[in-house]
Amino acid sequence: MPIPAPTLNPPFNIVRLSHTSFTVTDLAASRKFYADILGLQITHEDDSTIYLRAMEERGHHCLVLRQMPEAGVDYLSYKVWCEEDLDKAASWFAAQGHGVEWVERPFQGRTLRTSDCFGAPMEFYFRMDRLPPIHQKYELYRGVKPLRIDHFNCFVPNVDTAVAFYGKIGFRVTEYTEDEETGRLWAAWTHRKGGVHDIAFTNGTGPRLHHTAFWVPTPLNIIDLLDLMATTGYVGNIERGPGRHGISNAFFLYILDPDGHRIEIYCSDYQTVDPDLEPIKWDLKDPQRQTLWGAPAPRSWFENGSVFTGLKTREAELKATPIIAP
Amino acid sequence: MPIPAPTLNPPFNIVRLSHTSFTVTDLAASRKFYADILGLQITHEDDSTIYLRAMEERGHHCLVLRQMPEAGVDYLSYKVWCEEDLDKAASWFAAQGHGVEWVERPFQGRTLRTSDCFGAPMEFYFRMDRLPPIHQKYELYRGVKPLRIDHFNCFVPNVDTAVAFYGKIGFRVTEYTEDEETGRLWAAWTHRKGGVHDIAFTNGTGPRLHHTAFWVPTPLNIIDLLDLMATTGYVGNIERGPGRHGISNAFFLYILDPDGHRIEIYCSDYQTVDPDLEPIKWDLKDPQRQTLWGAPAPRSWFENGSVFTGLKTREAELKATPIIAP
Amino acid sequence: MPIPAPTLNPPFNIVRLSHTSFTVTDLAASRKFYADILGLQITHEDDSTIYLRAMEERGHHCLVLRQMPEAGVDYLSYKVWCEEDLDKAASWFAAQGHGVEWVERPFQGRTLRTSDCFGAPMEFYFRMDRLPPIHQKYELYRGVKPLRIDHFNCFVPNVDTAVAFYGKIGFRVTEYTEDEETGRLWAAWTHRKGGVHDIAFTNGTGPRLHHTAFWVPTPLNIIDLLDLMATTGYVGNIERGPGRHGISNAFFLYILDPDGHRIEIYCSDYQTVDPDLEPIKWDLKDPQRQTLWGAPAPRSWFENGSVFTGLKTREAELKATPIIAP
Amino acid sequence: MPIPAPTLNPPFNIVRLSHTSFTVTDLAASRKFYADILGLQITHEDDSTIYLRAMEERGHHCLVLRQMPEAGVDYLSYKVWCEEDLDKAASWFAAQGHGVEWVERPFQGRTLRTSDCFGAPMEFYFRMDRLPPIHQKYELYRGVKPLRIDHFNCFVPNVDTAVAFYGKIGFRVTEYTEDEETGRLWAAWTHRKGGVHDIAFTNGTGPRLHHTAFWVPTPLNIIDLLDLMATTGYVGNIERGPGRHGISNAFFLYILDPDGHRIEIYCSDYQTVDPDLEPIKWDLKDPQRQTLWGAPAPRSWFENGSVFTGLKTREAELKATPIIAP
Repeated sequence: MPIPAPTLNPPFNIVRLSHTSFTVTDLAASRKFYADILGLQITHEDDSTIYLRAMEERGHHCLVLRQMPEAGVDYLSYKVWCEEDLDKAASWFAAQGHGVEWVERPFQGRTLRTSDCFGAPMEFYFRMDRLPPIHQKYELYRGVKPLRIDHFNCFVPNVDTAVAFYGKIGFRVTEYTEDEETGRLWAAWTHRKGGVHDIAFTNGTGPRLHHTAFWVPTPLNIIDLLDLMATTGYVGNIERGPGRHGISNAFFLYILDPDGHRIEIYCSDYQTVDPDLEPIKWDLKDPQRQTLWGAPAPRSWFENGSVFTGLKTREAELKATPIIAP
Repeated sequence: MPIPAPTLNPPFNIVRLSHTSFTVTDLAASRKFYADILGLQITHEDDSTIYLRAMEERGHHCLVLRQMPEAGVDYLSYKVWCEEDLDKAASWFAAQGHGVEWVERPFQGRTLRTSDCFGAPMEFYFRMDRLPPIHQKYELYRGVKPLRIDHFNCFVPNVDTAVAFYGKIGFRVTEYTEDEETGRLWAAWTHRKGGVHDIAFTNGTGPRLHHTAFWVPTPLNIIDLLDLMATTGYVGNIERGPGRHGISNAFFLYILDPDGHRIEIYCSDYQTVDPDLEPIKWDLKDPQRQTLWGAPAPRSWFENGSVFTGLKTREAELKATPIIAP
Repeated sequence: MPIPAPTLNPPFNIVRLSHTSFTVTDLAASRKFYADILGLQITHEDDSTIYLRAMEERGHHCLVLRQMPEAGVDYLSYKVWCEEDLDKAASWFAAQGHGVEWVERPFQGRTLRTSDCFGAPMEFYFRMDRLPPIHQKYELYRGVKPLRIDHFNCFVPNVDTAVAFYGKIGFRVTEYTEDEETGRLWAAWTHRKGGVHDIAFTNGTGPRLHHTAFWVPTPLNIIDLLDLMATTGYVGNIERGPGRHGISNAFFLYILDPDGHRIEIYCSDYQTVDPDLEPIKWDLKDPQRQTLWGAPAPRSWFENGSVFTGLKTREAELKATPIIAP
Repeated sequence: MPIPAPTLNPPFNIVRLSHTSFTVTDLAASRKFYADILGLQITHEDDSTIYLRAMEERGHHCLVLRQMPEAGVDYLSYKVWCEEDLDKAASWFAAQGHGVEWVERPFQGRTLRTSDCFGAPMEFYFRMDRLPPIHQKYELYRGVKPLRIDHFNCFVPNVDTAVAFYGKIGFRVTEYTEDEETGRLWAAWTHRKGGVHDIAFTNGTGPRLHHTAFWVPTPLNIIDLLDLMATTGYVGNIERGPGRHGISNAFFLYILDPDGHRIEIYCSDYQTVDPDLEPIKWDLKDPQRQTLWGAPAPRSWFENGSVFTGLKTREAELKATPIIAP
């Protein structure tokens, strides 16, 4: 099944992924993990909620943590170009039969809540409180020196469906894994902002959030984080890596927060702004697509993910088996 | 004079800077400099012309070298989103009274040639030959491991005029230097593709090309290039750096090719896709805007540039004096 | 069993490990591996033998490759301080009942051949041909940019015996792993030259050479090597890593040459010149001693090694089981 | 004048440089500089004195800061191999007519105080309090991540005299700069511990301490320090660099503490344990000996140094002029 040609004139203009909101069961533990170990900056906190941003971001937050009895994901949020795009988005989703509502979100303007083709909650806004630059306040840097949120990755029961849906709203495929036997997609990476992805989709029980990624300057920052986690009680939170993905060419590390939300630390992908950029195809049986250097991913990485609060998942339609560490 | 608000709906869609064409007086010497020392990949060459691309680029070329009796710059070229944008561009420039013509350029489709507000030659195309990816062919990497062309920087006689003109066609200002006494712009950085700049403008006799920049993965690649140049006969071609710019936060090095065309090697700037990104203002009297670590730039860096072939320059209107190394 | 206090006045002065000699079954394949991929410099070659040095070494060679029908290790060689030390060494080994002979080795002066407490062949010399410095000839650097040979690591059937014997000739223990149940040593790292080790010993069927290590400047050089090997047909030769050892604190990668000789690429250990440096003790049950970040080593890493040509091995006396990747 | 052959059997065994003691005029300001910005660890402090160590050191201190009305240097201290070497040193210095005395120094055993050929105070000890390892307590790392003290560099009025004197007590020359016209030494680098130097000498009014150097893992740590200093009020304390020395091949940065004591941050030199290592000769007129990449050092770097408390200096005998930044 060929990758559809990119939609050059989508119905509304999504600029980039913006942020996500996690429910966490121990806010103090999550605070320590994200602020002290990873080095995200707290921009607002109260007894039950913490907002954080990365070092080069001027928007108020890229991550919201909410204390709740159960861990989960509230929504994935995207920034649109201007207010007109927000209204166009509302019309488009409504026309497609997706429920739409306007919700209140602190520190940001009018916010549209709707859902994707699997019912996963999506939010859109055009204006968020802007904060002064801190990327040159070097005394604030700590941990892995996170610069910005980079992408979401989701388990979905049908990747072909995901690519078709997100393609309609302008997400362009940069790389994908095909199951040679069935011609079905196993995974796909799609972007708006000019990197390898704003959101990727992997075959699996879903919809669930597989991971949220943060961009760092160099592989040495990731090595610093590994050293720090390994000697401050977080060695068990290191799940996979460091390594280089064949897909995306990124240098990566996967870690787990105290509730098991998976975070990728990521650098070194490439620029994808050309609308005629050809997607790169990988074979599901090629182990180098996962890790260029050959090491397979652990089973947990293929199986575990964060649920969207209150949302039922369904099993993957494609039953192919990736290469898993023995 | 305040920076104008960005044009959210420009008359046509420029994706990014694409490439430039240099005339050089000793093609073999230039070939050695760009291919062997810097590590750009030759994609086509004949007796009088060489085309090169950087490692993550899929377009056929980001630099053209042409053997000629005099060194100069043929044009600065930009990629537009689709063919329709090319025709819109032709109409817009013609309506503004700028001459337009359609020119033949090897390895690319229909190409519009026109000029900017100072008469500097601009070219636009929407389709260039696409080449297979080589970013993971690691045996090909050498020199500084250049990943992609990043930006142009031009001397212009009036930066306010430049920002107004380029702003109309969608270039958004990310950072700028103001002369506090007159309120005039000394320099400005403007972008299309989501980094700090596709093209920057500096007050000076112009229009002339100040430099062309290539993006590399980490500061260590720049250190590798310095070591290589210093021990292969190119120590005199190192002009300024390494250092970190206050403006753009980039880690930089400036070097000169055998004809004196200035090349910047560059990493570590930040993402600028938000349309409401606030430009950062710097004072002309702040030496840290040039080099965050305090070292002033040498006089040559403020004075020398490459001329556009056949084009007259005029003196800068603003007579302020930047801080120059003694 | 406590680590013996270091011998402050050994019977002769060993400066450092110097080199090893491998028999290889396909000299051309080994040449490509060591010279083209790793980046060692060939200092002499003929039809059956290749001598190589690393970039900062002035001695003629740190590795000798000899074409033979079977892969093996000829000897481990050490440099002594002066000619007098060579004669003292001959006397000392003879007095201990170890056979000694004077052998001819190209490019080096008088050479003593003897054996250690397990019969493993050791050679000593005081003078080797000195070559001009090349560490600043940056155009010669390639592959992982190897700077110098760093250490040997051997499987031995009794690590307590190894530490006692090598201690008598001045090797000082820097770190060690103890089997808590028996109080026996599982592994020990011993040095002469002021790093964590010139030679280490690990419990196992032996004597066999576990690996030979080369020192590189930074972890990024190791990442470069991984990328290069992964995309030039050597992905199957990557055995373990990258990672950081708990023991030694070094950033490491283990790779296999075409005959299975194991090479470690290594950086970031620490200075150990103080004679009163306290050895650091690790528990065999602590997985972070192997990899600070928690990943266990693969089974092959615990089992495979290179035999010394013509030498019988015997089983390890200690039957403890390290933590092995499932 | 040829470099003398190294003394293979010096009268006593110096292991390495150990530490220095600075008088400072504002202890709180110095504390902030060395502990908060550079990242040295405080091991003891009271109202008038602070002791610090670097991250991989097990000895109690590598730097002592003492509040006094005037800034100066109390002494340069060295560690000897064992107690017997301390007594041999006392005898040797006394026999040479240098005054010797036994002094009390907190946290270390018997301490010999004497002076070198220019009257500069030297101290020797064999035992200092040993502290638990902290090199793997990664949460403690900050600033430039200093691993260990590396070397001293002194202005002396006659470098030939210095090399002859220090050579007698076992310091071996690794590199040197000769004034071609007179055949006199302009500068020399001499070592005990197996790096390029424990102490270097430069022609100039002296004896004065030119700088004290600390070893860091990679050039990126030096870039981190520059960013930190540049944005926390220390931009004026950056004197020279970053760059690579031709001599020693080290990547360097020179900074000034609040009293003007010069500190070098340093990485990437090479191993020098071979007793037959040939010294590398540089011509005083070769600008690449200072900075491989060509940039000359500023005048302050050639002129300013720290005085030894109470000690008169005299002018340099050699009047040659190095290349100085215009």
